[in-house]
Amino acid sequence: MTEQPTQAGRITISVDAMGGDSGPATVVAGIAKSANKNPDIAFVLHGPEQKLRKLVAKRRVLQGRVVFRDCTDVVTMEDKPSQVVRSGKQTSMWSTLETVRKGEAHGAVSCGNTGALMALSMMRLRKLPGVNRPAIAILWPSRNPQGFNVMLDVGADVRADAKDLLQYALMGASYARNGMALDRPRIGLLNVGTEEHKGRAELKEAHAMISEFAEQANFDFAGFVEGSDIPGDKADVIVTDGFTGNVAIKTGEGTASLIGDLLREAFKYSPLSRLASVLAITSLQRLKKRIDPRQVNGGVFLGLNGTVVKSHGGADATGVSAAIKLAFTLAESGFAEKLAARVASTAQLAQDAAHVPPKAGE
Amino acid sequence: MTEQPTQAGRITISVDAMGGDSGPATVVAGIAKSANKNPDIAFVLHGPEQKLRKLVAKRRVLQGRVVFRDCTDVVTMEDKPSQVVRSGKQTSMWSTLETVRKGEAHGAVSCGNTGALMALSMMRLRKLPGVNRPAIAILWPSRNPQGFNVMLDVGADVRADAKDLLQYALMGASYARNGMALDRPRIGLLNVGTEEHKGRAELKEAHAMISEFAEQANFDFAGFVEGSDIPGDKADVIVTDGFTGNVAIKTGEGTASLIGDLLREAFKYSPLSRLASVLAITSLQRLKKRIDPRQVNGGVFLGLNGTVVKSHGGADATGVSAAIKLAFTLAESGFAEKLAARVASTAQLAQDAAHVPPKAGE
Repeated sequence: MTEQPTQAGRITISVDAMGGDSGPATVVAGIAKSANKNPDIAFVLHGPEQKLRKLVAKRRVLQGRVVFRDCTDVVTMEDKPSQVVRSGKQTSMWSTLETVRKGEAHGAVSCGNTGALMALSMMRLRKLPGVNRPAIAILWPSRNPQGFNVMLDVGADVRADAKDLLQYALMGASYARNGMALDRPRIGLLNVGTEEHKGRAELKEAHAMISEFAEQANFDFAGFVEGSDIPGDKADVIVTDGFTGNVAIKTGEGTASLIGDLLREAFKYSPLSRLASVLAITSLQRLKKRIDPRQVNGGVFLGLNGTVVKSHGGADATGVSAAIKLAFTLAESGFAEKLAARVASTAQLAQDAAHVPPKAGE
Repeated sequence: MTEQPTQAGRITISVDAMGGDSGPATVVAGIAKSANKNPDIAFVLHGPEQKLRKLVAKRRVLQGRVVFRDCTDVVTMEDKPSQVVRSGKQTSMWSTLETVRKGEAHGAVSCGNTGALMALSMMRLRKLPGVNRPAIAILWPSRNPQGFNVMLDVGADVRADAKDLLQYALMGASYARNGMALDRPRIGLLNVGTEEHKGRAELKEAHAMISEFAEQANFDFAGFVEGSDIPGDKADVIVTDGFTGNVAIKTGEGTASLIGDLLREAFKYSPLSRLASVLAITSLQRLKKRIDPRQVNGGVFLGLNGTVVKSHGGADATGVSAAIKLAFTLAESGFAEKLAARVASTAQLAQDAAHVPPKAGE
């Protein structure tokens, strides 16, 4: 087994084996899934080396494609971000990011504690020049042809002012271009109504700034959108603060999960409905696949020097593999470098724009 | 036909016949549905009298149970609330509220423009003593035994400070007690995590204030809840600001509607799945009924001198009838008076509590 951290011709993903709800075996199963589908991928795996070596040895497809970094400590879901930043140097999460920082991997994936991962990422990878608040972007099932919309921020920070929202628009547009191959994404700014006089003051200001930048940053500005447009087709990228975004996606997830459970119950109701459910099974599986959160698992941290994908804590092997695929796609497209260039070129202009009185929505 | 505004032994609901997407015929069909089911209900109907008389005359069940108030003007969905407040005196919406203000009806129902209805309600009915910001409360399908949770505010105001959130908790508890017959409702405060150190500053302050009042106001405080708990079973009443609440319910509605459409598509896919859908039809209808937004149509304005129910603009007769049933239930329980007493008794204490340093979440 080679111990070279980056293997020739392959894109290397740094993977935190620890911190997920179902342990390192699931993470190893996930990277094996990815390795099976993708000959161009290699891994640096972080956690208790002996244990990980045993798990990896069982998967023939991983032979020669995994390098180990032994870590004695783990970040738990209960750890406070501030604690982890102070004393988390021996954790697998820290080590996972360190490999990206040193340029030994093209992107990082972790199933661990979101707050700690963001805090560590900000400290170790640093924010891109011109970015005030990094954001977490996720994909949400939608009526658009691509099947999904990008939404950000969904919880990196509970606050966002007008300039932050403009940065989110720029970063979200870049992500949609590189992660979803949309040449000219449509950006929507989340509000409680689509009329320009509605909503909070910072939203009116952000509306003016984003529409100012649309042409230059090569996106279309769809203006204000509402919660119903997150799964809709009016925009490809939904921009909002991390508090609102986090509540919105969790409400959507909770509602979808309730409907799923009620659907199962409804089909158990009578012998006839049980028969129907047998006949309907492929239809229901088709639907499930279309909106399966595991298929789009992975929140991307935007605004940092390096790509970090946060996989869901409860992800199974399919979910982990989806998060790794996302990190791979972004690495392959040179997303981190393109985003850095985009943000740098507009940062100065945004600075200027902030002093121009807003035109719209007043 | 008697022209007495309140008919002996009956509860009278003041209904705005105009402003809904599908016109007065739908509203009249809705009140006829309610009249059919409920012998104890009567109506004051507002709009162009001649037209309304013709529509009502076609419904035998409405004979002797409707009084008319002729109005020449209508509030449209495009009208700005400030305009309506200034010059809306001839509108059916204004007249609908006026009947409640004068004590000629026990509650009001309108399908019209939400912003205008709230602005007019505040001006004509006035806020309850001790209430700073009135709120709109809706019911959301949930995993709780009662099948629904109360959520407020969903859009009366885009802001709410800690004291407003405390008022929402008190009003929401009262609503759950009178509208849903829950003796001791559990109140949850919406945040991005359940840990007490998380979220915005005003939420930590509200956490302390609400937990201070729980015992006295006869509710249980479930602490911070997340978006996933809105359709969940951790709380019966979800308290949040009107911006977040509005985005959350619209995201939930949009996601539910997307799933519904994808389900229909999935069943059209093949001859086998079409057969399955025929067999499954009663199961699906059972599910649909359980989460049908028409069955729980009606946002209740809380914190005013009088009960106002906002029906969805796109409501059909079933939806209008559900909104009327809600207004009836609240009127019958003496909700407006109980809420006024509850708020008055706690207003002074809340005033004091605001000067006490918060205990929890610090």
